[in-house]
Amino acid sequence: MPYEHKLIRRVEFPETDMAGIVHFTNFFRYMEYAEHDFYRSLGHSVIMPHLNPPLGFPRVHASCDYKKPIRFEDMLEIHLLVKEKRARVLSYIFKFRKEGETEEIARGALTVVCVSHVPGKMEAVPIPAGLADQIQVAPAELLG
Amino acid sequence: MPYEHKLIRRVEFPETDMAGIVHFTNFFRYMEYAEHDFYRSLGHSVIMPHLNPPLGFPRVHASCDYKKPIRFEDMLEIHLLVKEKRARVLSYIFKFRKEGETEEIARGALTVVCVSHVPGKMEAVPIPAGLADQIQVAPAELLG
Amino acid sequence: MPYEHKLIRRVEFPETDMAGIVHFTNFFRYMEYAEHDFYRSLGHSVIMPHLNPPLGFPRVHASCDYKKPIRFEDMLEIHLLVKEKRARVLSYIFKFRKEGETEEIARGALTVVCVSHVPGKMEAVPIPAGLADQIQVAPAELLG
Amino acid sequence: MPYEHKLIRRVEFPETDMAGIVHFTNFFRYMEYAEHDFYRSLGHSVIMPHLNPPLGFPRVHASCDYKKPIRFEDMLEIHLLVKEKRARVLSYIFKFRKEGETEEIARGALTVVCVSHVPGKMEAVPIPAGLADQIQVAPAELLG
Repeated sequence: MPYEHKLIRRVEFPETDMAGIVHFTNFFRYMEYAEHDFYRSLGHSVIMPHLNPPLGFPRVHASCDYKKPIRFEDMLEIHLLVKEKRARVLSYIFKFRKEGETEEIARGALTVVCVSHVPGKMEAVPIPAGLADQIQVAPAELLG
Repeated sequence: MPYEHKLIRRVEFPETDMAGIVHFTNFFRYMEYAEHDFYRSLGHSVIMPHLNPPLGFPRVHASCDYKKPIRFEDMLEIHLLVKEKRARVLSYIFKFRKEGETEEIARGALTVVCVSHVPGKMEAVPIPAGLADQIQVAPAELLG
Repeated sequence: MPYEHKLIRRVEFPETDMAGIVHFTNFFRYMEYAEHDFYRSLGHSVIMPHLNPPLGFPRVHASCDYKKPIRFEDMLEIHLLVKEKRARVLSYIFKFRKEGETEEIARGALTVVCVSHVPGKMEAVPIPAGLADQIQVAPAELLG
Repeated sequence: MPYEHKLIRRVEFPETDMAGIVHFTNFFRYMEYAEHDFYRSLGHSVIMPHLNPPLGFPRVHASCDYKKPIRFEDMLEIHLLVKEKRARVLSYIFKFRKEGETEEIARGALTVVCVSHVPGKMEAVPIPAGLADQIQVAPAELLG
């Protein structure tokens, strides 16, 4: 069962800022791109409109520690690892590296909750078994 | 009846790019900010969820001509002018200036269509009278 | 000599808005992604820091006509075609389609000028021969 | 001496996503808007191009915990509090509320380092006295 996923992505021009480097907020977009690509790799989508009420995965926590800047046209590897899996909650860490290099340039984390979108409110519900059964927590030595 | 609206906005850091100037795509955001502020100034919102089916204003055309760059912390005046008003369609032009200056730094345009959001499709419908009756086309000499 | 370039790109979640479709401003990002990928396909980068003074390609015109909405996880084909080539100026059109479909969902245009970035000012200069010599105007029948 | 700053900001349409709420990445932009506005309120700018080499404040840590969603046209209060001040480092927390309400909808944090931008590298340097001398750590009871 998968506990990790890698996505490679080129840094695009509007992701840079006037300091000449990628604006720090984009790392949170990159984490989400890798998370969604992880679900797709399992045959799922983060959007589940076929369920009634529809389910979604809002974030309850997001963080990132930045070690080195990245720049336009850098090829960025986003390495997702499942850190925790509970009935309603998934936690991920993300190791950012330039493609082909071993040095970490940033380390991120996301915690998402499965909710049902009843109009006007969100309620935490169990992650659908079809998705949850495919996801495993990564070995501790990979999370360090 | 109003045919124009002005919005002042400070350029924020993530709107810049590595060339040190505002990334060109942000001018389209600025146009929309001024358009939505125009509706608010008339007591309306571009989002009309109280109507059934809900109405929206997707864009069918957007354009911008750039004359001068703008930079971080510049105070930007976005001057909306109503160019055309039809039963289902509104067209705007936007004159961009630095606050307090007369020189145009960019000139934009948007054309929006009023649609009803029946699930799975959009259909052009008349602009609600409560909004349309308040909007007037700007005098030709202001649109030049 | 190349006069066109195609880039395929999946629609990401933060590119959507509360209307459930891709926010219109993202089509301008997509055009730029295809333009920069075109230069890379020719062995160049839009950023030329090795030249002194450095060169850049600010936009003087951008426009888009929208025919159909696109949504999260749609695979979008961005088809760049060179419309005009002058000493200092390049004009492109962009045909947007869902991958594998023939219907155009949007049609965009960009005009960019080659400038040198002397500190505090930009000056239009000829496009470097190494890049310009590789670019050709597309046949008229493809631009229709 | 100031240890806090408040910025009020209306949620704009492109900050929403297809779930109908503000996309989580925007909270990091909001933190930066409040931080930069804090410097302006002290007569400074985060960009110090008049210094040689120029100084900047890249982020080394960013985090956010989300409690409630916010939506289009909500008026958001971003309350910055200085959590830690060292020679080269500033840490902030940010309390997010809807204007006029007491309930926290999110809690964020940023840690920034003062660096000099020698071409090709960044080096941590002391925060200029003219800025540092104006900033004070907030009382512990406000940081809880």
